[in-house]
Amino acid sequence: MSFAATILTLYPDMFPGPLGHSLAGRALGTGVWTLDTLQIRDFAEDRHRSVDDTPAGGGAGMVMKADVLARAVDAALAARPDCPVLAMTPRGAPLTQDRVRTLAAGPGVTLLCGRFEGMDERLFEARPVEPVSIGDYVLSGGEMAALTLLDACIRLLPGVMGAASSGVEESFESGLLEYPQYTRPVTWEGRTIPEVLRSGDHAKIAAWRAQRAADDTRLRRPDLWERYRSARDRPPSGAQRRDRD
Amino acid sequence: MSFAATILTLYPDMFPGPLGHSLAGRALGTGVWTLDTLQIRDFAEDRHRSVDDTPAGGGAGMVMKADVLARAVDAALAARPDCPVLAMTPRGAPLTQDRVRTLAAGPGVTLLCGRFEGMDERLFEARPVEPVSIGDYVLSGGEMAALTLLDACIRLLPGVMGAASSGVEESFESGLLEYPQYTRPVTWEGRTIPEVLRSGDHAKIAAWRAQRAADDTRLRRPDLWERYRSARDRPPSGAQRRDRD
Repeated sequence: MSFAATILTLYPDMFPGPLGHSLAGRALGTGVWTLDTLQIRDFAEDRHRSVDDTPAGGGAGMVMKADVLARAVDAALAARPDCPVLAMTPRGAPLTQDRVRTLAAGPGVTLLCGRFEGMDERLFEARPVEPVSIGDYVLSGGEMAALTLLDACIRLLPGVMGAASSGVEESFESGLLEYPQYTRPVTWEGRTIPEVLRSGDHAKIAAWRAQRAADDTRLRRPDLWERYRSARDRPPSGAQRRDRD
Repeated sequence: MSFAATILTLYPDMFPGPLGHSLAGRALGTGVWTLDTLQIRDFAEDRHRSVDDTPAGGGAGMVMKADVLARAVDAALAARPDCPVLAMTPRGAPLTQDRVRTLAAGPGVTLLCGRFEGMDERLFEARPVEPVSIGDYVLSGGEMAALTLLDACIRLLPGVMGAASSGVEESFESGLLEYPQYTRPVTWEGRTIPEVLRSGDHAKIAAWRAQRAADDTRLRRPDLWERYRSARDRPPSGAQRRDRD
């Protein structure tokens, strides 16, 4: 079963773009995932094929029309009723590795790429379209966000990364940043790989890595650290945790 | 003066990719920004041109070598000593719109794209390389993150968006999400554009939008809302704010 990526965009030529190279490109070639693009402009019904209009209430730029977007979403849902529809917008819920993992385990994803000043808000009331953001910055459109989300999903599909890299010890998989990595040469420009990593003592190495992951998360990402601690300190539902008394 | 983007990557063919289209593509064509890619493998010095080796202490995957990366960074710094060097990694500081705006106002940016399990940590001690993350998820490499960061910067360069869209009322520019947008038709599938937006009363429209921006941020992004409130409640440095008593 292929993972089905469907993209609704004004710029279908941007796809697969960088996803046509390296691991994702090979996986596209072998059918691990499939890519379909729908040109949003094909769902405009006036003779100018307009997809946008000026913002109600005034202001700069243009807003994508709810009727055109809804017809595009309906077409995608008719073709792939099993795939969730996500709209890439800075007003959306932040993308997390948990969400990426859930999406990658499913049948695929339909991604709606906005342009200009945004999409008519009524679309989100009238259709099952979930706004998602890849970060707290503004892009020229949803296309780069869609490529980023797909890249994160595709590398998790069976067979893409290979057995060498399971993904389980990476940043965010445990709720923490990953520990720092080192490789040969042992000494480089007077800097030596930490001794414990050269000890061959697997228990000590695991303990050092866990400590560094915790330390780096606490120092670099106090927001992640707080979330990690609250999740850890919360008793499992339906049972009182007693092992910490 | 062009904005100079320099990319250190194992996949130079991924660039400009999606940035060759639309606004960013036109701006590249007219010299608003320039793109140079350096192939990291060209800085390997052994006869196999190795760029990676197994992780010290064991574990899955491969780690990019500090010596090879440092030589690539040194070459980029020799060519563009005025441009900051950012390494795209999930262990980095989260990218923000503030940072994007600062970068876009500068001479350019050099972006180091990691692959595999990461980069030898000694690189960050030995060279002025700042780790930056575009979000709390894991990508197949730094390339998509570099494209995303560049897209965010390029749209802010003079002349790229045009006068129609100043960027000042967008999500994150005020520390809040943007207010919802609407456009014609006034009634669509029984849903009508909020009346205030059709009133022509600019003060009322501005107040409604400010309220919706605040409400949506509080509901959708309590983390952003808390940061916004603390920044607002902090008195300006060197002066006691009295206007709130």
